[in-house]
Amino acid sequence: MILDLRPSDPAPIYRQICDQVVTLVDEGSLPVGAKLPPTRVLARKLGVNRSTICRAYEELWALGYVESRPGSYSTVRERVRRAVPAGADARTAIDWARVGSRAASTALAELPRFRREARTAPGGEVVSFARLGADRGLCPVDALRRALRSALAEGPSVLEYGDPAGSSALRELLARRMRVHGTSVTSDEMMITAGAQHGLDLVLRLLGGQGRTVVIESPSYAIGLVLHKMHGVKLRSVPMRPDGMDLTALERILQRERPAFVYTMPTFQNPTGITTGQPHRERLLALCTRARVPIVEDGFEEEMKYFGRSVLPVKSMDEGGVVIYLGTLSKVVFPGLRIGWVAAASGCIERLVALNRFSSLTGNSLGQAAVAQFCSSGEFETYLRRLHRTHRRRMQVMLASMDQHLPADRALWTRPTGGYTTWVRLPRRAAQEERALLEACRRERVAISPGSLYFAAAPRELCFRLSISSVPEARIEEGCRRLGRALRRLA
Amino acid sequence: MILDLRPSDPAPIYRQICDQVVTLVDEGSLPVGAKLPPTRVLARKLGVNRSTICRAYEELWALGYVESRPGSYSTVRERVRRAVPAGADARTAIDWARVGSRAASTALAELPRFRREARTAPGGEVVSFARLGADRGLCPVDALRRALRSALAEGPSVLEYGDPAGSSALRELLARRMRVHGTSVTSDEMMITAGAQHGLDLVLRLLGGQGRTVVIESPSYAIGLVLHKMHGVKLRSVPMRPDGMDLTALERILQRERPAFVYTMPTFQNPTGITTGQPHRERLLALCTRARVPIVEDGFEEEMKYFGRSVLPVKSMDEGGVVIYLGTLSKVVFPGLRIGWVAAASGCIERLVALNRFSSLTGNSLGQAAVAQFCSSGEFETYLRRLHRTHRRRMQVMLASMDQHLPADRALWTRPTGGYTTWVRLPRRAAQEERALLEACRRERVAISPGSLYFAAAPRELCFRLSISSVPEARIEEGCRRLGRALRRLA
Repeated sequence: MILDLRPSDPAPIYRQICDQVVTLVDEGSLPVGAKLPPTRVLARKLGVNRSTICRAYEELWALGYVESRPGSYSTVRERVRRAVPAGADARTAIDWARVGSRAASTALAELPRFRREARTAPGGEVVSFARLGADRGLCPVDALRRALRSALAEGPSVLEYGDPAGSSALRELLARRMRVHGTSVTSDEMMITAGAQHGLDLVLRLLGGQGRTVVIESPSYAIGLVLHKMHGVKLRSVPMRPDGMDLTALERILQRERPAFVYTMPTFQNPTGITTGQPHRERLLALCTRARVPIVEDGFEEEMKYFGRSVLPVKSMDEGGVVIYLGTLSKVVFPGLRIGWVAAASGCIERLVALNRFSSLTGNSLGQAAVAQFCSSGEFETYLRRLHRTHRRRMQVMLASMDQHLPADRALWTRPTGGYTTWVRLPRRAAQEERALLEACRRERVAISPGSLYFAAAPRELCFRLSISSVPEARIEEGCRRLGRALRRLA
Repeated sequence: MILDLRPSDPAPIYRQICDQVVTLVDEGSLPVGAKLPPTRVLARKLGVNRSTICRAYEELWALGYVESRPGSYSTVRERVRRAVPAGADARTAIDWARVGSRAASTALAELPRFRREARTAPGGEVVSFARLGADRGLCPVDALRRALRSALAEGPSVLEYGDPAGSSALRELLARRMRVHGTSVTSDEMMITAGAQHGLDLVLRLLGGQGRTVVIESPSYAIGLVLHKMHGVKLRSVPMRPDGMDLTALERILQRERPAFVYTMPTFQNPTGITTGQPHRERLLALCTRARVPIVEDGFEEEMKYFGRSVLPVKSMDEGGVVIYLGTLSKVVFPGLRIGWVAAASGCIERLVALNRFSSLTGNSLGQAAVAQFCSSGEFETYLRRLHRTHRRRMQVMLASMDQHLPADRALWTRPTGGYTTWVRLPRRAAQEERALLEACRRERVAISPGSLYFAAAPRELCFRLSISSVPEARIEEGCRRLGRALRRLA
């Protein structure tokens, strides 16, 4: 066996040996069964350390080129044979489109629509009102670094499997945050999830079921709509009015049938930005309690009440244990840590935790421990104040700029009392003009989120969502100016 | 409004103000609609900073006690009314047991069996052969700390939503690890999951479907069995022979029907510890390729080949794209980070990623970035060598101690060539004696994992799993001695 080592080669010696043996085997110079020289012998011959040879042989073994037993020669092993029957087209042994579930087809078919949204916002010079998520420019990286350090100081236990209900410390801290929003839950009425989406997925596993009905607001959270469809539930759309979901329409549905649940975002609804008032919340809760139909309350932006209006979650009034509350940090901070929670009656939580136990084992223990540190150190509140200050100003500038630059005779929009989003409707334009609208926006270098994403069935009019979550205050007016031009261009 | 502040009280001033106002409202001294003094006035009166009063009012607002509008008085608001119809029993408005899915009932019903396992291993003086997971005593906490530091140095992007397929750097690094095991996959044939369990859950969403059939080994991974049941698939058990799944039985099944997939753990099978040989793997692959039935290969302990035998994954020979390979770090390191992966044909991965996109949005970006650092820095390999050294010795001691202390005339056990587990059968004892066995072990202060967990239907004989993953070498013999006594006590 002749090897040619080059000290000038940047690859380490063991790697050179390994690669050259691989070549010798592949080209047939070293046949199956051939013995490699003993490590000691080869080391002497090549003038290298024996451990280098051992490492090379280990690598060869790992690559499946040699067999080796302790105290015996390493020999070239028979390489794996192809398992495909001769003549069959290797790459098409399984037709994944055919064997895959309807859930998978649904998800796959929906993907491009969401990618299209992304394409309209390539960053750079574009003003993007498309993205909804905490501004990464405000992200308290240093605070998280400190929180991680504290969490890791506790030793390896934070890197272990945890409780499938989530860290009890974090549950307690998040329960405390819910009390800030007037909602009292005990820690056995709480579980930690990997974000609100994961919470909704668990709820659909609990209550969904093929062919069951779920009542949703129309428009509603785009990615949530797809998840519902993936679970095979039938969607009953209830229109959003300026004051929230049309409760008369809901009441009619509840008289006729018993849906699996009602999915609602009472605060800064996605996409409309509408926040319902106290009487609306009470009536919704009373209707569902009487009908014994769970309410899934998605409180994804509960922490974004920066204008100081006090509307408490529906969950805060839920004496009957009817409300399943979905919470998340992701729209406020650290979306990449995937931390959310569910607050519900203990009988409901118990089942969601069981589903989680067997589908995920546990959540991300380190992330949970770090967020617990972040909350208990007071850094969360400090950060929230900054976030509020920033977005209070952004929203004021946004609404003022829209008033100034959008054509009020053709467009209507909501005036949110917090959160990130406003919703624009062009009542005299057909939904089919969306492509033209996106094209006009692209030309003006402003990105929006197309309205069609937010409806289970096609909307009747042209509409879109604007989000201020990632637009610096100084760029907002320019964005609205461009948007105004785009809308006029459309006309 | 009379407030009584006490500088000696450890509660901050704003909190004292807030608490006292809450009391005044709750006891009716401050009626609904009452105006609170302007912040400036109250600050002067109490001799505190105005910002303290503002903070107290904010808190009162957050708790739902007052309404406030910018530039106007804060007034006591009407407290929320109960929404439950009079006379209804508040806590039973929803009967979760009745409205919950069969999946939830299955999961909930199975939970206590797993808790029972946990109870037999309370730590302390007990020698626990029950737990299967990397030894936390070996956990490279410092290396992870360094990896997190490097990951966070990249700025807030690692705390953002990521690619639903997972970090491309980590995919590339894990693909490289698969090449170490002789398996070549490109990065569009890989996705990152939150552990192998999450991967299996996605596969079941793709291929499972109510009423479809899945072929499993018997015995098989306990928590995996429950997950299959949760998805409503029918399980076809194929017995494990000393050399692996009975392929003749599998062939008969494939002649009769076309299952959704075959679920197998060819290396260090959980619970038996059996590793199949090359010919078994080739025959399994050929059978399934011919029948066009996907193989789900769970490689949960691929990295635990510490005895140096080179058996490559079935996936390494998979020219037809039939094998869906589930990988995970959790049985080697950092289970609490929840990092696993799936390697499969791109048409399959595409669908799994779409399912993940809408059910999870994305994975844990920070954890993925940190693990990528951990892999690329070489710390993973250093750690693996230590892990291998430790477990090579542990397994040698274990097998020697079993030979010495277990009654060979009554018990049979497997001799694994790596990994963590061995499997003990008592062929002359009925499975019903499990409770007595566990009790005997409890008395001897040794914990085992009861065999019944690992069968879809009740096993015929008494059996159990032993794991060395968390027993220090010095305690193994004592554990086997106790176990021997427990088995004799049973007799």
